Amino acid sequence: MSATGLRDYLDGPYKAARDVVREGLAEHAGLLDAGLRLTRDEYRDEVLAMLQQITADGHPGRGFPKEYGGQGDLGGFIAGFETLAFGDLSLMVKAGVQFGLFAGAILHLGTTRHHEEYLADAINGQLLGCFAMTETGHGSNVQALGTTATYDPATEEFVIHTPHEGARKDYIGNAARHGRMAAVFAQLVVGGESHGVHCLLVPIRSLDGDPLPGVTLSDCGPKLGLNGVDNGRIVFDHVRVPRTALLDRYAQVDAEGTYTSEIENPDRRFFTMLGTLVQGRVSVGGAAINASKVALTIAVRYADQRRQFGAPGSANEALLLDYRMHQRRLLPLLARTYALHFAQAELVEEFVRLFGGGRNESEGRKEGVAVGEGDEHDRRALEAQAAGTKALGTWHATETIQMCREACGGAGYLAENRLAALKADTDVFTTFEGDNTVLLQLVAKGLLTNYRESFGKLDPLGTARFIAAQAVEIAVEKTALRTLAERLRDVVPNRSDSADPDAGLRDDAYHCGMLRFREEHMLAGVARRLKAGIDSGMEPFEVFNRCQDHVIAAGRAHVDRVVLEAFLAGVQRAPEGEVRERLKELYDLHALATIEAERAWYIEHGRLSGPRSKAITALVNELCAQVRPYAGDLVDAFGVPGAAVDVPMVVPSQHE
Amino acid sequence: MSATGLRDYLDGPYKAARDVVREGLAEHAGLLDAGLRLTRDEYRDEVLAMLQQITADGHPGRGFPKEYGGQGDLGGFIAGFETLAFGDLSLMVKAGVQFGLFAGAILHLGTTRHHEEYLADAINGQLLGCFAMTETGHGSNVQALGTTATYDPATEEFVIHTPHEGARKDYIGNAARHGRMAAVFAQLVVGGESHGVHCLLVPIRSLDGDPLPGVTLSDCGPKLGLNGVDNGRIVFDHVRVPRTALLDRYAQVDAEGTYTSEIENPDRRFFTMLGTLVQGRVSVGGAAINASKVALTIAVRYADQRRQFGAPGSANEALLLDYRMHQRRLLPLLARTYALHFAQAELVEEFVRLFGGGRNESEGRKEGVAVGEGDEHDRRALEAQAAGTKALGTWHATETIQMCREACGGAGYLAENRLAALKADTDVFTTFEGDNTVLLQLVAKGLLTNYRESFGKLDPLGTARFIAAQAVEIAVEKTALRTLAERLRDVVPNRSDSADPDAGLRDDAYHCGMLRFREEHMLAGVARRLKAGIDSGMEPFEVFNRCQDHVIAAGRAHVDRVVLEAFLAGVQRAPEGEVRERLKELYDLHALATIEAERAWYIEHGRLSGPRSKAITALVNELCAQVRPYAGDLVDAFGVPGAAVDVPMVVPSQHE
Repeated sequence: MSATGLRDYLDGPYKAARDVVREGLAEHAGLLDAGLRLTRDEYRDEVLAMLQQITADGHPGRGFPKEYGGQGDLGGFIAGFETLAFGDLSLMVKAGVQFGLFAGAILHLGTTRHHEEYLADAINGQLLGCFAMTETGHGSNVQALGTTATYDPATEEFVIHTPHEGARKDYIGNAARHGRMAAVFAQLVVGGESHGVHCLLVPIRSLDGDPLPGVTLSDCGPKLGLNGVDNGRIVFDHVRVPRTALLDRYAQVDAEGTYTSEIENPDRRFFTMLGTLVQGRVSVGGAAINASKVALTIAVRYADQRRQFGAPGSANEALLLDYRMHQRRLLPLLARTYALHFAQAELVEEFVRLFGGGRNESEGRKEGVAVGEGDEHDRRALEAQAAGTKALGTWHATETIQMCREACGGAGYLAENRLAALKADTDVFTTFEGDNTVLLQLVAKGLLTNYRESFGKLDPLGTARFIAAQAVEIAVEKTALRTLAERLRDVVPNRSDSADPDAGLRDDAYHCGMLRFREEHMLAGVARRLKAGIDSGMEPFEVFNRCQDHVIAAGRAHVDRVVLEAFLAGVQRAPEGEVRERLKELYDLHALATIEAERAWYIEHGRLSGPRSKAITALVNELCAQVRPYAGDLVDAFGVPGAAVDVPMVVPSQHE
Repeated sequence: MSATGLRDYLDGPYKAARDVVREGLAEHAGLLDAGLRLTRDEYRDEVLAMLQQITADGHPGRGFPKEYGGQGDLGGFIAGFETLAFGDLSLMVKAGVQFGLFAGAILHLGTTRHHEEYLADAINGQLLGCFAMTETGHGSNVQALGTTATYDPATEEFVIHTPHEGARKDYIGNAARHGRMAAVFAQLVVGGESHGVHCLLVPIRSLDGDPLPGVTLSDCGPKLGLNGVDNGRIVFDHVRVPRTALLDRYAQVDAEGTYTSEIENPDRRFFTMLGTLVQGRVSVGGAAINASKVALTIAVRYADQRRQFGAPGSANEALLLDYRMHQRRLLPLLARTYALHFAQAELVEEFVRLFGGGRNESEGRKEGVAVGEGDEHDRRALEAQAAGTKALGTWHATETIQMCREACGGAGYLAENRLAALKADTDVFTTFEGDNTVLLQLVAKGLLTNYRESFGKLDPLGTARFIAAQAVEIAVEKTALRTLAERLRDVVPNRSDSADPDAGLRDDAYHCGMLRFREEHMLAGVARRLKAGIDSGMEPFEVFNRCQDHVIAAGRAHVDRVVLEAFLAGVQRAPEGEVRERLKELYDLHALATIEAERAWYIEHGRLSGPRSKAITALVNELCAQVRPYAGDLVDAFGVPGAAVDVPMVVPSQHE
């Protein structure tokens, strides 16, 4: 088959934005070994130079409103960002910090005066900034941050302060070397009363690069990867900023020190503010999926050239990719990469729909107002979808890149073959922009409450209390839990009793039914257990903790189902002919490998017989063999530029 | 509990050897951040300096015969090597190359004249050497190496030559910078006839460090990890060495060019020679297990200090280690680390028994003679055990260190907290000293043929042919395959029908029975499938390839069982009282988590009912909670020196 048609289909509506970044990658290909050639500081400066280069190429501008020099093409911006993951990941992360997080905070949490004062400079890279949320003592639990911003009506200033060591801002990108300003998340104290976490713009460095008075900056030092990003620590000692430094889209403080917000409930206000920052998670998930594509491109091409041990009647040894075990290790991961690609594309579409900006032009932004009810429901759903895709996409990247490394043996361990950097650089994705286990709890929580009244605290206690108080009854009644299993059995005929265990295994209704059954059954089970625990008078924390593993598994089951359906929709929309045929084959492989991985659960819950389970394993093997001849084309279709994958261990002529 | 008693028990008979290395670790603790402070060449030279230091401390001497300046304490030598894994892993690997591989090849493959000429200098570090086996084109398939050693009777020399690029020696430790001599594995050609792979000593560098004529040396460049080891490439252009350069314990070439060997079958000769090098695999497995201990020590202590999110009725947030999910992520891995520790200790005992040298003195070595029949059987068994423990131990390290990194969030990503280096340095363990998937096939093959006539080729083709020709009939008859399942059902009462699904879940006979059932059933299944395929006239390669995944799974099932039984024996031998109680608890956790991980297979094969499977999961959760209060003591008992685990993110006072 030709990979071109498939590649165009995968690139989708943002092909142009992706191609711009692909072309640019040749220019910053030198970064790919910068971590090996240069000192850490030189590498960081080189990354900064390339950041200015992609700025000149128009990458960040694409994602911002036209009135501040942008093009209002949010989808193209994210697609471009994802494509940066084909190249040096420090550059991608630094771009994410500068344009996604820092400029994004100004755009989403600030109002016109902030936009007019800072946005153009943030977008064109003149004003380098930090996103100072995480503290040494608090990562995932953002509501418990220790930094304070106390209003002083006498001078009309906020005093930014780090009250103890645990409140030190930590791991902050751009803080160690380049950032001049920080979007600082702090407990807002006005008139002696704390109003929870808000964001303020705080200058941290002079134009000469010196820390400003009261600001102590330090370096996090070398990291496992991403050493081209200058992560650092920030400590504030009673640093004063004007009242206007508060990003006041959702809450305002007037000169006299009166705090106002259109969102009365503090939790709801907090989560509304945080929700506007969902773009970070959307982007990281996409980047992780694209990093997996790079690793698979290298490992599949290598396996399609490298021979090992003899095949009978042949002078040649057999190709690695002809071994079943090698197929088993790489091809289901290739199929899952496709599945996640389509899930990510769906997520980006929904993000673009909700966060304004048509595909190619700005539709203007609502400003200074809280979003409406309907919007709010959709946004909570989007946040859950982003959290889930980020968790699965980043774990997938860790697993896939590791497998690719092992599949390339000693050659995979050499830096020149790129898997080393991919592995090191992507490793933190599973825990930054939200720890994956915390994110899956967020997903499950949203589902349990069916998004209704879902502004409770994110922490386990809040979840347990909230569900105990309001949601479980609803959930229990709504889904008729006690008969759910029975109901689903009717919807999805249980073929495990069929005489032919192979019957219908490639039927997509069967796959979707199985994944839906798992999701609903697990959610119902969690709800029932939470309710039973609370009813029995157990401590809410204990109640939650005793089914934390179930909660997380339920979140994962949900995302698995969403990803599967996105892949299926992608197959159905694909151009007829070879593209669709190849995709359907990959889809079947992905669907059955997913069911196979959870077969213990299905058998335990009476949804799969032993013989049928074995038939699924046999079919996964068979599908691997069917996909194998096209594996080279399937990685070619990712369109990873040569500069990123032409490594010494892969002979170029073989995959042209 | 006090960790001291447990620690003494774990240290076992080689406590003194371990403690010497532990004490030395303070001296070379500076290496722990050398990769960050120094250039690559400086780092390598620093590692060399420390290698000389541990030589002066007596580490390598311990493992060699007294007549060459050693102490003949092979067990203590390996225990010391394993303990080096608590520190900088480049030092450990360089020591492994120099003393284990290079000096080991001289000792095991050479005869008195080689021992007298080189051994003392190899042991005292004056003669730095390489183990030049792997080539660019051939890693696991050693029999197919391309380098040639052709005898020239006119000059009584061997001509060492690299005939094509794929025959270049690659990834060779000590080759890029420090090695002066190489133990080169090459096809021995005498009188125009090839006799298969043999080993010869070839000088590669002058005393000044320049490559010798005809030898081209280059650097593999930066690697994912282990950058303190100077891995390089060697190309030979008709390099001449004297006839005495052949390590001639198992085969000799006389001046006239007559080849002789006491082992007539070339395959058997090859595997006998290779078998003497089993020490490398024994050592790497142990090192990987110890690297896991370092990571777990850090992650468990961190989780026992770090708080996140609220617990009800408490001003404090909850400790990470009090969360079920966190327990689930770390504690079964802690239990498996203990299991592997005992399996490794058993392996070392058997190695010491077979490879001479009592615990504290040399019993003298058989030299120049092939091992006897009984010995041979035991050695094949040892090789399989070493291969299996290496595969499981190194995969365990990769999984455990990754999990520990994620469990420490952003802090785990900073180099200062050591998990980064552990992850990077150990990553290659899964594919060097034998790729793990190849090793598990070796394990399964040995079992299938019941070690009888087991000198067939290691490659898949050879396996399939061999089994087809000789072994399957035997295996089928011996185990009465068709009724095996029934037979085992009698031996291990199937409790899945019991009214009480919890009954006997902590009964070790139940655990062992389950793991034995799985092993025997899988092996029988593989044998049956191989036989059926061959009988049907399918190509042997195809027959093998179609059940490669089963072969590997069967190998793994065997090793799982061996590891479990080793842990159980370790519990039973433990001092009565708290040490034994804690170990039994951990053993139960390990046993049940192992069964849980394979529960799909057990249910598919009628060995587990759905309710009992769920009961096992519930009990694993409960055991995690029971182990949790002792988790700190359980990692303290590993005895990892403070220099290796006192990282900034762990507050020292908390675990003293």
